[in-house]
Amino acid sequence: MRGISYLLSAVLAMASVIVYMARASEQADGKAPPIFGVQIPPGYRDWKLISVAHEEGNNNDIRAILGNDIAIKAYREEQLPFPDGTIIARLAWSYVASEENNKVFGRAQSFVAGAPTNVQFMVKDSKKYAATGGWGFAQFKDGKPIDEALLKPCFPCHVPIESRDFVFTRYSPSP
Amino acid sequence: MRGISYLLSAVLAMASVIVYMARASEQADGKAPPIFGVQIPPGYRDWKLISVAHEEGNNNDIRAILGNDIAIKAYREEQLPFPDGTIIARLAWSYVASEENNKVFGRAQSFVAGAPTNVQFMVKDSKKYAATGGWGFAQFKDGKPIDEALLKPCFPCHVPIESRDFVFTRYSPSP
Repeated sequence: MRGISYLLSAVLAMASVIVYMARASEQADGKAPPIFGVQIPPGYRDWKLISVAHEEGNNNDIRAILGNDIAIKAYREEQLPFPDGTIIARLAWSYVASEENNKVFGRAQSFVAGAPTNVQFMVKDSKKYAATGGWGFAQFKDGKPIDEALLKPCFPCHVPIESRDFVFTRYSPSP
Repeated sequence: MRGISYLLSAVLAMASVIVYMARASEQADGKAPPIFGVQIPPGYRDWKLISVAHEEGNNNDIRAILGNDIAIKAYREEQLPFPDGTIIARLAWSYVASEENNKVFGRAQSFVAGAPTNVQFMVKDSKKYAATGGWGFAQFKDGKPIDEALLKPCFPCHVPIESRDFVFTRYSPSP
C-alpha cells in the first residue's frame, strides 16, 4: 500500500507541475490570453468614448465602449475597414437600480453601473489575425484573461456584421 | 386711424428690437444660458469616462458621464469637495432596442444609444456659484442652451447628495 500511495503522490505532484507550467506558458505575465495574445492596453480607461449600451439576459450589464486614438479617428471619419492598430474596449459593469437616484426622482427609474463585470478588447491587425477578419479578441477581469475556450465564439458572433468590419458598436454623435 | 396704426407699428418694432437685444445679451454667442453663463466646454467629447447610466421614465435615455482632467483626478483620488475648475458632462441618447444585436444574441436583450438627447454640464466655481453649492448648471442640444426656467430646478434636485458635493455619479472602477 505504501508503494502505491507513494506512486500516487508522485504522479499527482507531477500533474500539478505540468498544469502550473502550462498555465504559466499560456498566460505569460498573467495578461495574455492564449489564442490571440492580446494584452491589456496600458491606459485604456483614459480612451475616448464611442458609445454606451445595456445588455439584458445573462449579461445584465451596462457598458461603455471606448477607443484608442486610431479607433476614434476611424470612427469619426467613417473609415472602413478600421486600420491596423485600432483597439476598441468594451467595459462592463453590473446593471444596478439606484435607490439613491430613485429617491430624488420620486420613482424607480434610475439604473447605474455597479460592480465591474469585465473588459473586452478587439485589436485590429489584418495580418496577425487574418483568420478572424483581422481582429484579435480578449477579455479580462481584474487584470486576468479568461480561458481560451471562451474566446473561440467571439469571431463567429461578429461575422453577421462584416459590412461594418465586424464591429457592432456605432459611434454616437455628440448631443 | 393712420396715426394709431403708425404708433402701433412703431411700438411693435421697438418691442422686437428690445427682445432681440435681450436675447443677444443673454445668450452671448448662442451657447450661454442666462443664469449660470456656462458655455459648452471645447473638446468635452474627448474627456475621460466617469460612468454610465440608464434613466427610464420621461427621460428614457442611456447616458455617459465624462469629466475634464480636474474632475477625473478628483474622482480617482476621492477628493471632496471637487476643486474649482471641475467640469462634469452628462451626454444622453435615446434608449433604443438594437434589432441588429438581438438577431445575433437570438433574443431581445440589447439596448443601445440612439439619437442624441442633450448634454448637461456641472461646472465648479465655489465663488461664482456660491448660491448653488459652488456649481453652475447648463444643458444644450445641438449647441443651443435650454431656457433659463429649466435650469432652476437643477440645484434643488442635487441638494440631497450634498455629502458627495452635490454630485450623483460615482466613479466606476475599471473592470
